[in-house]
Amino acid sequence: MSAAFSTSFERLLGELEKLPGIGRKTAQRLAFHLLRAPETDAQGLADALVESRRNIRACSRCFSITEQDPCPICADPKRDGGLLCVVEQPSDVLAFERGAEWRGRYHVLQGVISPLEGMGPDDLRVRELLARVTAEAIREVVIATNPDLEGEATGLYLSRLLKPLGVKVTRIARGLPVGGDLEYADQVTLARSLSGRSEL
Amino acid sequence: MSAAFSTSFERLLGELEKLPGIGRKTAQRLAFHLLRAPETDAQGLADALVESRRNIRACSRCFSITEQDPCPICADPKRDGGLLCVVEQPSDVLAFERGAEWRGRYHVLQGVISPLEGMGPDDLRVRELLARVTAEAIREVVIATNPDLEGEATGLYLSRLLKPLGVKVTRIARGLPVGGDLEYADQVTLARSLSGRSEL
Repeated sequence: MSAAFSTSFERLLGELEKLPGIGRKTAQRLAFHLLRAPETDAQGLADALVESRRNIRACSRCFSITEQDPCPICADPKRDGGLLCVVEQPSDVLAFERGAEWRGRYHVLQGVISPLEGMGPDDLRVRELLARVTAEAIREVVIATNPDLEGEATGLYLSRLLKPLGVKVTRIARGLPVGGDLEYADQVTLARSLSGRSEL
Repeated sequence: MSAAFSTSFERLLGELEKLPGIGRKTAQRLAFHLLRAPETDAQGLADALVESRRNIRACSRCFSITEQDPCPICADPKRDGGLLCVVEQPSDVLAFERGAEWRGRYHVLQGVISPLEGMGPDDLRVRELLARVTAEAIREVVIATNPDLEGEATGLYLSRLLKPLGVKVTRIARGLPVGGDLEYADQVTLARSLSGRSEL
């Protein structure tokens, strides 16, 4: 149908539909908006896409996303270097950083142990985590993987590896609704989950 | 907060947030997806944006969007050239074309008369519409502007200009949406569905 318009339009729809949560109707609404809006808007979005892919990489220390290496959080001397919060994704770092509760640093696993998706410990930044705990004299590791099946399993797996290193291992409190997603948790719940952490 | 990540990321968020219906959280979800997805996805979207802005223009005849001029619908000899459906936006053409009911052509006003938004008849493709009705020997003009205040006012305005040209002017039916529930219909729609009733 929309091919009656143009193949460029059809292609733009196709690219927009690849985005998560964007169906046919939303893609159409966005496409028509981008065609009506000032040309600088479409160009600006295009540039931002290319630029962010070019400039943003993983921090070599915590594996969050960053433009400088190490990332601003790793490079910040005011952070407590003895505290490490282990999360699944860079978006989880963002979620914690929206609040001011956590003054330590982060370690991003870049995923979670998930046999169904073929993700094992070797696909995650586990070796790098163990190396950091030793090298950086970490006092406490807070496991902040999602409170779902894979997150809990990954947490248990990590605690078994970490405890022999003589580090205190804690888990964020299950103030977060089970089955929920850390990225969408509210500030208070996130702060609770930090203050109510318990030893594993 | 997210500036802790990078200015590129912040910029991408800003560009995504300009899109209609995209808030901060959705922008973040899309941005993280685009950073995680294959680089070809981000590049593909960027290219499609630039390409569609470059290739897509208004049809010089019906003012819908198109890559060729005249657009495929205007150029299609199998369309009934005596029937013209007047709509507000190119997206309305798309909506009608999803069905196979309409076999005539279209005329896109590129807006609607709206004193509040400073849109008058001179900002719309009204002059072009009148010229087409004369030049193309149109038998019937179907006013298919939205059934809201501005759409109705624009329809009335157009019908007063069109009728002296000796053309039949009709308005799309307003009534209960198919599959809708009478219980939840508003008073105005219910009244319309009664006054516009047809014999079975």
